Amino acid sequence: MIQWDASTLARLDRESGEPLYWQIHNRVRDLILSGDLPPGTRLPPERDMAARLGVNRTTVSNAYRELGADGLVEGHVGRGTTVCARPGAGRPGEEDLLPQPLPWSEVFVASGEQARDPLIRELVALCAREDVISLAAGVPAPDLYPIERFALATDRVLRQHGQVALQHCPTEGHLPFREILAEVAARRGIAASAEHVLVLAGSQQGLDLVARALLEPGDAVVVEVPSYLGALSAFRAAGARLVGVPMDEDGLRTDVLERVLARRRPRLIYTLPTFQNPSGRVMSLERRQGLLALAQRYQVPILEDDPYGELYYGDPPPPPIKSLDRQGHVLYLSTFSKILFPGIRLGWLAAPRPVVDRLAAVKQYTDLHTNTLAQWALAEFIREGWLEEHVAHLRREYPHRRQAVLAALREQVPRGLRWNEPAGGFYLWCHLEEGLRAKELLAEAAARGVAFVVGEAFHADGGGQDAFRLNFTYHDEEGLREGIRRLGKGLGMLMREGRERRGVPQAAVRPIV
Amino acid sequence: MIQWDASTLARLDRESGEPLYWQIHNRVRDLILSGDLPPGTRLPPERDMAARLGVNRTTVSNAYRELGADGLVEGHVGRGTTVCARPGAGRPGEEDLLPQPLPWSEVFVASGEQARDPLIRELVALCAREDVISLAAGVPAPDLYPIERFALATDRVLRQHGQVALQHCPTEGHLPFREILAEVAARRGIAASAEHVLVLAGSQQGLDLVARALLEPGDAVVVEVPSYLGALSAFRAAGARLVGVPMDEDGLRTDVLERVLARRRPRLIYTLPTFQNPSGRVMSLERRQGLLALAQRYQVPILEDDPYGELYYGDPPPPPIKSLDRQGHVLYLSTFSKILFPGIRLGWLAAPRPVVDRLAAVKQYTDLHTNTLAQWALAEFIREGWLEEHVAHLRREYPHRRQAVLAALREQVPRGLRWNEPAGGFYLWCHLEEGLRAKELLAEAAARGVAFVVGEAFHADGGGQDAFRLNFTYHDEEGLREGIRRLGKGLGMLMREGRERRGVPQAAVRPIV
Repeated sequence: MIQWDASTLARLDRESGEPLYWQIHNRVRDLILSGDLPPGTRLPPERDMAARLGVNRTTVSNAYRELGADGLVEGHVGRGTTVCARPGAGRPGEEDLLPQPLPWSEVFVASGEQARDPLIRELVALCAREDVISLAAGVPAPDLYPIERFALATDRVLRQHGQVALQHCPTEGHLPFREILAEVAARRGIAASAEHVLVLAGSQQGLDLVARALLEPGDAVVVEVPSYLGALSAFRAAGARLVGVPMDEDGLRTDVLERVLARRRPRLIYTLPTFQNPSGRVMSLERRQGLLALAQRYQVPILEDDPYGELYYGDPPPPPIKSLDRQGHVLYLSTFSKILFPGIRLGWLAAPRPVVDRLAAVKQYTDLHTNTLAQWALAEFIREGWLEEHVAHLRREYPHRRQAVLAALREQVPRGLRWNEPAGGFYLWCHLEEGLRAKELLAEAAARGVAFVVGEAFHADGGGQDAFRLNFTYHDEEGLREGIRRLGKGLGMLMREGRERRGVPQAAVRPIV
Repeated sequence: MIQWDASTLARLDRESGEPLYWQIHNRVRDLILSGDLPPGTRLPPERDMAARLGVNRTTVSNAYRELGADGLVEGHVGRGTTVCARPGAGRPGEEDLLPQPLPWSEVFVASGEQARDPLIRELVALCAREDVISLAAGVPAPDLYPIERFALATDRVLRQHGQVALQHCPTEGHLPFREILAEVAARRGIAASAEHVLVLAGSQQGLDLVARALLEPGDAVVVEVPSYLGALSAFRAAGARLVGVPMDEDGLRTDVLERVLARRRPRLIYTLPTFQNPSGRVMSLERRQGLLALAQRYQVPILEDDPYGELYYGDPPPPPIKSLDRQGHVLYLSTFSKILFPGIRLGWLAAPRPVVDRLAAVKQYTDLHTNTLAQWALAEFIREGWLEEHVAHLRREYPHRRQAVLAALREQVPRGLRWNEPAGGFYLWCHLEEGLRAKELLAEAAARGVAFVVGEAFHADGGGQDAFRLNFTYHDEEGLREGIRRLGKGLGMLMREGRERRGVPQAAVRPIV
């Protein structure tokens, strides 16, 4: 052990105005960083140091404490204060004596939803495999994209208005596009003018902005069970507590909700009333009215998420809750990701003016504004009447896919599974028979080249182990049939294994497919 | 005053498992909401109610407290507990007895940066006036946009790859685009592969994601004084305390920074080392090395923001700090908003893999991913070599604009103002002579149809009243000359007024222009 007597310490400057403890700290630190005091060197005891420098002992004590906080020295009972070992240190005297990799895991904040959902991460990897038929993704049919018309609209906008369409636009959105969105809202029964519309970089951004503007850590948010996983993530990231309310055939159970409202005082009610993701359910008109009345009585805002409402394959669904709202309790969120394509990231919110203003204030420091060119191009596309034509086309095409998947399920999966027959939207919501878990089925299915989303991802309350979601819009009918065939094989294997585990003699098990 | 004796209260159910106080609460609430207990009705004293129901007084007390929390009753000393008045209530017995507009101002959270910066809001309104020459906006020259080539790249991508280019892409970005960005980084001396690149919806999103991943309320962040206002907003929104460090001709004062690092333990150092916004300054190579060494010694990450580094009008500036970084302390942020156009909202970050992973996890619930089509189109544009050609073109054109604005200032503004002569980038940083305030000048300038950004917007410490920023890239030379002419007139008026206020005889004041 090297004992240092402080004789090499530069003189303190009592005139400088810099506190003496800080001068001592700086001078000793420089000696350590320069290598003059190598690791293991023992500093003088505080009392000796104080006497040598003619300062109070407290002054030295403070200086040593700061050096300790710097990670340069450490105190040991019986050994006094010694210079720390420096892993990875270079030659003494170098400027960058302590260049070490930054330990990033210690640098990130711990709050909120941090790690990416591992369920989603695995699924993304799975769906990236070329041999996998993905019934997981909630995306529209790429083979139906109106690419020619969108290319035409984009090219026209660029050549006629390029200097403006490639420029910044207001955070709230390009005004002519907001006016068109107000017309889109009006066709859905919602009274809104451009000032009530906020353009978003996809509806996911709306979820995030609402969460940031309305929720503080610990606030309760009502969500349906099950519900859209991206919304659950956004609310969790804001530190919210998710309060799940069950659904029945008419949608969100408002009787249960009322008890929750009285007891938990939630800050927000999140609902997907029409062709719900993942359940495919439609909230009845009466339930919509009851939900709105509860929101009014308890003064809780409703976030109504409506990506699928236009995609009905029989009678139109009831009007949006927002269309019933006369007192400004409803924020209506929608998107072009499901009725057009998701890659241009365009969503929108219709809401009372104070909400648009506040969310725009948050959006300003989030991303300034949404892609200007995409807004111009879509405005042109809608103005030409091409969106309405395209949605009408989807309403004719998707029922064929729905029928294909339902027929394949009936043929290929005779036992072990229940599913709904949705009247619109993108999804079948499936339940395995008792004792079977969707996660185990996914393993079997993935091995056979088909993927889906397990129910847990949609359950705020940790349930849904027996459930999973199947998309029927992305693949064509042939792909859907093959996907269900593979799913059926996987389920057959799972049921055999399940029976084996439950002790059913192997000889008695007949293959299902 | 109506006194209610509780005789209409439905019987409690002692078998139900629901707490008795909650049953009392629910039953009284229903009577209030149904109108059976009109506003002003006095509830029985707790003791009487307890006796009538055969429960403890505490039980009644809890029930009344819950009713109070519901906003249905209120307690008055001497008057007992009475049913609240309900403004706007309909006929008793209606389901929606209390439909009232939601008081939004009470619904929003109070934390963080909430209202939009009023300086910016006013400026945006000002710049929207057609008669105003805006020297405020930090945007490139629209008349130089390579619209034809970008339209070609976009159209080619749509027609050849539309089904994929309009589809979702990974949160981290379209892989071929990330690979191209890694090459762009390499040309700036930064060793990065695609996995170190995160695609962003503009660099503002990078600021927000870094703030959300690294900062908790109360954390200190080092910023230059002055600094980019959008960064200050993002850090403030995360609840950070901004610690300003001054600059000199060589950039950030690392001697001051070192004292800050030792004392304040900041979580992040934010710097714009090259053609800084707003000061136009360039950090010297030695200062860059010193800054990096400090970051390593104190284990604090550096966020290096570099929108302007490619836009040099003489010798190239020193290499990015990131190019010197061997230990992964630097997050390098850049954008296409200044070297191409801002409307497509494309920025990017080069950073250690753990940072890319974490920020992508945050971005996933923020906006899923950035516009896919824009990534494909820009990848095509860069692959053709058109970006490098365009930047070379800007390097030839912008010096003319810079010279035009400098010459106009020398001619039109002979007194009262100092300015720098930047070697690159977008801005002049101007200082008024003592006693004059930029806000007052802006009022005079706006009246004459010219706008700029006042210094306070860039000052984390509340200073900068005498300073303002002039952009010289957006307008052509003629527009710049006219803008400066108007500015000079405004300044002349301000100086006359200033002298008048200071008591200089009016007759002695000669007009400056």
